[in-house]
Amino acid sequence: MMLKIRTDLAVEAKEIWQETAEKQTKLEGVIARDSEKNGFKITTVEITDERGERALGKPVGTYVTIEIDKLINREDNAFTLCAETLADVISSMMKLKDGDSVLVVGLGNEAITPDAVGPKTARNTMVTRHLVEKMPEHFGTMRRVSVVQSGVLGTTGIETAGFIKAVVDKLKPDAVIVVDALASRKMARICRTVQLADTGIIPGSGVGNARAAINKETLGVPVLAIGVPTVVDAATLAADIVSEAGVKDLEPEDLANHGINMIVTPKEIDANVADIGKLIGYGINLALHGDITLEDINMFLS
Amino acid sequence: MMLKIRTDLAVEAKEIWQETAEKQTKLEGVIARDSEKNGFKITTVEITDERGERALGKPVGTYVTIEIDKLINREDNAFTLCAETLADVISSMMKLKDGDSVLVVGLGNEAITPDAVGPKTARNTMVTRHLVEKMPEHFGTMRRVSVVQSGVLGTTGIETAGFIKAVVDKLKPDAVIVVDALASRKMARICRTVQLADTGIIPGSGVGNARAAINKETLGVPVLAIGVPTVVDAATLAADIVSEAGVKDLEPEDLANHGINMIVTPKEIDANVADIGKLIGYGINLALHGDITLEDINMFLS
Amino acid sequence: MMLKIRTDLAVEAKEIWQETAEKQTKLEGVIARDSEKNGFKITTVEITDERGERALGKPVGTYVTIEIDKLINREDNAFTLCAETLADVISSMMKLKDGDSVLVVGLGNEAITPDAVGPKTARNTMVTRHLVEKMPEHFGTMRRVSVVQSGVLGTTGIETAGFIKAVVDKLKPDAVIVVDALASRKMARICRTVQLADTGIIPGSGVGNARAAINKETLGVPVLAIGVPTVVDAATLAADIVSEAGVKDLEPEDLANHGINMIVTPKEIDANVADIGKLIGYGINLALHGDITLEDINMFLS
Amino acid sequence: MMLKIRTDLAVEAKEIWQETAEKQTKLEGVIARDSEKNGFKITTVEITDERGERALGKPVGTYVTIEIDKLINREDNAFTLCAETLADVISSMMKLKDGDSVLVVGLGNEAITPDAVGPKTARNTMVTRHLVEKMPEHFGTMRRVSVVQSGVLGTTGIETAGFIKAVVDKLKPDAVIVVDALASRKMARICRTVQLADTGIIPGSGVGNARAAINKETLGVPVLAIGVPTVVDAATLAADIVSEAGVKDLEPEDLANHGINMIVTPKEIDANVADIGKLIGYGINLALHGDITLEDINMFLS
Repeated sequence: MMLKIRTDLAVEAKEIWQETAEKQTKLEGVIARDSEKNGFKITTVEITDERGERALGKPVGTYVTIEIDKLINREDNAFTLCAETLADVISSMMKLKDGDSVLVVGLGNEAITPDAVGPKTARNTMVTRHLVEKMPEHFGTMRRVSVVQSGVLGTTGIETAGFIKAVVDKLKPDAVIVVDALASRKMARICRTVQLADTGIIPGSGVGNARAAINKETLGVPVLAIGVPTVVDAATLAADIVSEAGVKDLEPEDLANHGINMIVTPKEIDANVADIGKLIGYGINLALHGDITLEDINMFLS
Repeated sequence: MMLKIRTDLAVEAKEIWQETAEKQTKLEGVIARDSEKNGFKITTVEITDERGERALGKPVGTYVTIEIDKLINREDNAFTLCAETLADVISSMMKLKDGDSVLVVGLGNEAITPDAVGPKTARNTMVTRHLVEKMPEHFGTMRRVSVVQSGVLGTTGIETAGFIKAVVDKLKPDAVIVVDALASRKMARICRTVQLADTGIIPGSGVGNARAAINKETLGVPVLAIGVPTVVDAATLAADIVSEAGVKDLEPEDLANHGINMIVTPKEIDANVADIGKLIGYGINLALHGDITLEDINMFLS
Repeated sequence: MMLKIRTDLAVEAKEIWQETAEKQTKLEGVIARDSEKNGFKITTVEITDERGERALGKPVGTYVTIEIDKLINREDNAFTLCAETLADVISSMMKLKDGDSVLVVGLGNEAITPDAVGPKTARNTMVTRHLVEKMPEHFGTMRRVSVVQSGVLGTTGIETAGFIKAVVDKLKPDAVIVVDALASRKMARICRTVQLADTGIIPGSGVGNARAAINKETLGVPVLAIGVPTVVDAATLAADIVSEAGVKDLEPEDLANHGINMIVTPKEIDANVADIGKLIGYGINLALHGDITLEDINMFLS
Repeated sequence: MMLKIRTDLAVEAKEIWQETAEKQTKLEGVIARDSEKNGFKITTVEITDERGERALGKPVGTYVTIEIDKLINREDNAFTLCAETLADVISSMMKLKDGDSVLVVGLGNEAITPDAVGPKTARNTMVTRHLVEKMPEHFGTMRRVSVVQSGVLGTTGIETAGFIKAVVDKLKPDAVIVVDALASRKMARICRTVQLADTGIIPGSGVGNARAAINKETLGVPVLAIGVPTVVDAATLAADIVSEAGVKDLEPEDLANHGINMIVTPKEIDANVADIGKLIGYGINLALHGDITLEDINMFLS
């Protein structure tokens, strides 16, 4: 059975498999476990072989999901705890050595709010490469970090993956972090879930146009993908609402190809994407630069 | 029968009434007629008494709808023809005298694209009041036009209608044009319909918080409201999609209170709102300043 | 002797008087004193009667100048100390009672960086009026603060002072704070000095077009003006540079009417104006709301 | 004699040489000529050998200057005529063959208005590469044009010339156009002169930090540099003003190292840079795509 509906989240792909598969079937090639840190729920889905790939429609690798409702609801102290949690997951997935350099890539279009997760993250990431190289006496303890925002295809005429490949060939970083907005299948996860995957990403894969991947195979260095779902598709929304209202139990597939020119996003999308971009940027900063504080980051970025 | 679902368009309110009323019932207190100008379809709904008010849930007055699909599809020459059509309707609804002054109010929040129809219009409207007063030798043939953008409530702490009332009391214009984004009940009308109403407007009325009206009663001068629907609510979308897909025939009411924190808007909303703001601004300019050309407006605004 | 050259700072007007007056002359009608708080130098110039008015070209009142070099140089902890110092001066000049409401007006044009002090301050000021009125159980201990940004004349066709008068008549605040960019006569003071004056302000007075004042006489309530010089005029710059270089001792008056279409501003103007807008906004917040912390403000504004 | 003061314009370097050289000296290795097109004055300075290089402090090559006062003053029809004139000069300097592809690079920082000539041009340049490749049936007659904006060094950590080299190696265009803001030595030329040079450019060369060049040697393909001066330095302004006022005849060198942290720019810089970015973008579009009209460009970019 192949997954046909649209989700970028491994944790959802697994849910969908379970809903649709026969009860007695076991999901082979996939290991999942839950944990918690600082009060944030973390789910890890590991796809270990091609049986798992086939079942979930995603490549072999590790997918970690952090639930960030507390941050979006702006509970007391949630930002600090959430950024530290994210930094922790980033560190454990990247396994960087001292002195390694990192390129952070913000995908997406800043002018379209639900697509601005990458650009907003880029603005909250400390660019240190030139400082470390020119003023090692002051910045020598930091990692060298460069940041690029890939404009969308239409604004440069250059295909995203090719553009990033060119930058990587020039800078030769030891690792790449690529940040993008995702699509989810459940309204409840929109803007409330961060997924980290060591498999890289295929930009805009959900939108149906096959583009080149951004991953270790294409770039030659490890790629950590960080994403947050900011939209559901209209068919998903419709199926969710109709089922919730108890009118009829529907799957999004039943409604495929309807409402395809619409996007569905939270009313608070502006505030949400601002919070998320800050979270991911600060999480990256904390993970990459040993003993830095949130206050140091505030000062550096202001 | 009172209308409970959400639409800002009189033409839709009438449709809904007809769908739900018994076939033999006649809609009293409402006169409707279709016409065409420059290839654009125009529908006029007149609510003539309180029977019409009750049936359609809107105050007595004239509601004119122009279908602007050609503009949004960027057909050849559509902008010019559409702006002239709009100017024509504005002129016929406002009945201004020579020398009358006008205040144009752009409602909404520029930072949220589907809510930016008012601010975008404001940017495309020629501000002439100070020029006419200070350089009558050059600008004396133009009408005196002032423009304000009401920030949203949260950014000033001042309630919108009260703020506009204060400006009107100060400037004493002969008429007010108020421009806002609306909500519609049909996906197909989103960004494709302009409604003009001589009844004024209740800002954010659809969102359920009762605010003071902006109309002739509250401001003391005639108020023309111009609006374009840019969002549908999630329940509407869901009902539309489910019915379209032939799964079940639903009314949005069946799904009320679901998906209420989501907005549904076209993928092309940025381009659409830019086109619409330019259309309304240019339409207003053409209507208010006798023998001006589109080229003059381009020059003035650039 | 009347002052003819361009400065908005009382402290400079006094300096200029002293440079040009005969040594034996005493400056009557003016009292000046220096003090210090939190390491910031504070100068108070009081113009006590019309002799002082004539000599300095400014109305009777109190003008307090805080030197903020440490903030602009981003010394450790400077922001906190500087905001508290500013709050302290604001409190002592405004003498508000519990429950008093305040209107904060940001003058200037956000699109022109050196003119954006007012708009940037507006963005950093907590708008509480609607919250206090609607949710007194949560916000009842705060003062009611409203914020308006007056667009520049050309964007609305409405004269600034008249616009603010209309808002004041509507809101009936107990006091007004008006924030604007100023001009200085010394390069060294640009972006490094905050002036507070209980005399109000004449918007754009330096640019030579007489506009209506914004002060207690015109608005009917006390007006505190807060300003920071962000530009020098070209003649001032030229005279300064020529004198510094030891080439010739010149006064700006010798060069009047040259370079009048140019503005002179620091290379770092973007960062400076961002810092200044944040400083003034936070200073206002601390002064108006009893026991609030910087952290509370961060949270409120984010 | 080596030129020590700051100008990016060959035509000014020549003027300065002539002011300072003895009357009887002939400027060897430089050919200059004036012409006119569509009412715009055009000056061509050709540096033909190393004597010219030494005298003017610029590499061998052709430097064409167009005076655009009419555009900035917004005379009737000036935009059309000026864009056509510019397109004509671009065409004659680039000598492209049918089917050649071009990379347009906008240097500078959009957030700092006088530095935004490159980014504004980028926004007004038609990106066609992906369209020609994917929809040759519709766009096959156009040249393939890609556009990149190089962020400033501090926002990416990547050195500009290296970044562009990486993009060129990836895209392999047949030619590069690089657009940047320049510095001039005369106030009167600010925002009123476009310089085109077939020598490429050294980004930020005037600011004194030696960076890698962007030219045929470094990129391997011909590079056309297009620039407009938007700032003068403070010493230049001071010398100009003092001399204009008849106070003393000074050269900027006499005042070197004074006012070095200030920038001097026209009061109308926002409008000027908007006009200039549109001019250069439209000029490039007209030059690169055979039979396109201004109306086509408007439609494409809107």
